[in-house]
Amino acid sequence: MYDLIIIGAGPAGLSAAIYAIRKKLNTLVLSGNVGGQVIEAHTIDNYLGIFGLSGAELVEKFHEHARTLGVIIKEGVNVKVLTKAEAESFKIITSQGDFEAKSVIVATGKKYRQLDIPGAKKLERRGITYCATCDAPLFKNKMVAVIGAGDAGLDATWQLTKYASKIYLLNKYPELRGDDIQRQEQLKKSPLVEIFNNCEPREVKGDKFVTSLIFSYNGSGQKKQKEIAVQGIFVEIGSVPILDFLNSLVKLNGRGEIIINPETNASSETGIFAAGDVTNIPHKQMIVAAGEGAKAALSVYNYLKK
Amino acid sequence: MYDLIIIGAGPAGLSAAIYAIRKKLNTLVLSGNVGGQVIEAHTIDNYLGIFGLSGAELVEKFHEHARTLGVIIKEGVNVKVLTKAEAESFKIITSQGDFEAKSVIVATGKKYRQLDIPGAKKLERRGITYCATCDAPLFKNKMVAVIGAGDAGLDATWQLTKYASKIYLLNKYPELRGDDIQRQEQLKKSPLVEIFNNCEPREVKGDKFVTSLIFSYNGSGQKKQKEIAVQGIFVEIGSVPILDFLNSLVKLNGRGEIIINPETNASSETGIFAAGDVTNIPHKQMIVAAGEGAKAALSVYNYLKK
Repeated sequence: MYDLIIIGAGPAGLSAAIYAIRKKLNTLVLSGNVGGQVIEAHTIDNYLGIFGLSGAELVEKFHEHARTLGVIIKEGVNVKVLTKAEAESFKIITSQGDFEAKSVIVATGKKYRQLDIPGAKKLERRGITYCATCDAPLFKNKMVAVIGAGDAGLDATWQLTKYASKIYLLNKYPELRGDDIQRQEQLKKSPLVEIFNNCEPREVKGDKFVTSLIFSYNGSGQKKQKEIAVQGIFVEIGSVPILDFLNSLVKLNGRGEIIINPETNASSETGIFAAGDVTNIPHKQMIVAAGEGAKAALSVYNYLKK
Repeated sequence: MYDLIIIGAGPAGLSAAIYAIRKKLNTLVLSGNVGGQVIEAHTIDNYLGIFGLSGAELVEKFHEHARTLGVIIKEGVNVKVLTKAEAESFKIITSQGDFEAKSVIVATGKKYRQLDIPGAKKLERRGITYCATCDAPLFKNKMVAVIGAGDAGLDATWQLTKYASKIYLLNKYPELRGDDIQRQEQLKKSPLVEIFNNCEPREVKGDKFVTSLIFSYNGSGQKKQKEIAVQGIFVEIGSVPILDFLNSLVKLNGRGEIIINPETNASSETGIFAAGDVTNIPHKQMIVAAGEGAKAALSVYNYLKK
């Protein structure tokens, strides 16, 4: 019986683990892949104190930190079900056996909805990126495409106007949607931005890095195909929290994220806490997730009073 | 006219600055001393990704990160008054001139109420510490004193029972106070903890590091004086947010902290945001403050819509 099991070993999970172990909580971390989505990032410059590292290098730093403090991480674990066990404890059924704990921190993050067209898999992290806040500055004076024109896509496009020399915004629908009308107006006026509606991406081309993108669109009532030369492709077609093992144990919001008390990181189920991108916090950023993990562990410490 | 002025260059302020500059906000940081309270810390092991550094070394990493990204920091600045200027802008009067900005992030932190007895100043960071969560693990098998027996002092004492060989808990009042009755019972029963009531610290002794503490207390109705051999002194006599320049521009809670919307870091005054220890967030930790700074900057970006 552990005091605490942390599910997920991204920034939120590992920061929680560091705080938990320093509080002498008997803690286990269950992880599918250490680092989670961070590994995907090309260069990370917005995590205060560390810059110029790739996502994989930064994850190795996090991992080393946790290992050095004695955090026990079970890797390659597929968590299947989290359920209530007897009074004030939880059972976690996984591909590597069952575990029990008095408390749980869910820190499984989100996965971006992947661009699923020929060439996309091969060129991921080689020009294809899923985070404009992270990667826009890498595309100074370059030509880029943004796929997806919801609020996230509009914001990515706007950020890129500060860096890129040209931005193609590929919109799936006949017109721009999303709440941010002011941003839509700005983008329509920007000489850097070219918007295509009724648009469907078809293929990414490139050898070592992205060199072009082929898409179909509706022009003058006709279906057309076009190839654009771009060095970067920002994919903004949504993301999904990873929590299929939770069934309906905790309350989720409309985006399927765990609703937490923003002060304590408590979920609707006593003893289950959550931190990072899997929760309803508005900003999905590494440094925010690391802070949230710390908060969650400190709240678990208060909860267990041991 | 700046888009954003950040007051304070601790983890919250510098993380905010990094996010702001990457969003191309025209940003200025005003700082009394870069790093703030972090500089005081002996060793910091709970900031995910960086460990084994002193507070001063960690601050240098933060500072270098911000400088590398082009953050402009005015140092040695004493901020005197923050007021509303004309519509949707603020004026900041400082020892180095006046500045105007469309938005402000207050990230000035807290200062611990200092132990003000002979020897204390000299031995700060040399056995005297103000953060048990940060420093308890450094006192494994050592003898320590905790000064202050409010909830923070009780918690520090409890944390130290996992590490120290003996803990003297010096309580100012005739009996233990604070909300945490369970913790009080645990401490009273612990063979490691010795509690002195009606207690007043008098002098810290030591050459390079703390070697003993002299205090007076009431024993059997009599005022007595005692010297205890200790290697560590944990001071838990409260802390005060740094915001005398704010007058009554934003709403504070009972502890004098800025009340923020936990999702957006907005204060009660439109255009003024706050982050880190100066706010009402419950956990005053560096990694939490860095996350809060990022959140605040992203909220300013949304607020300014530019």
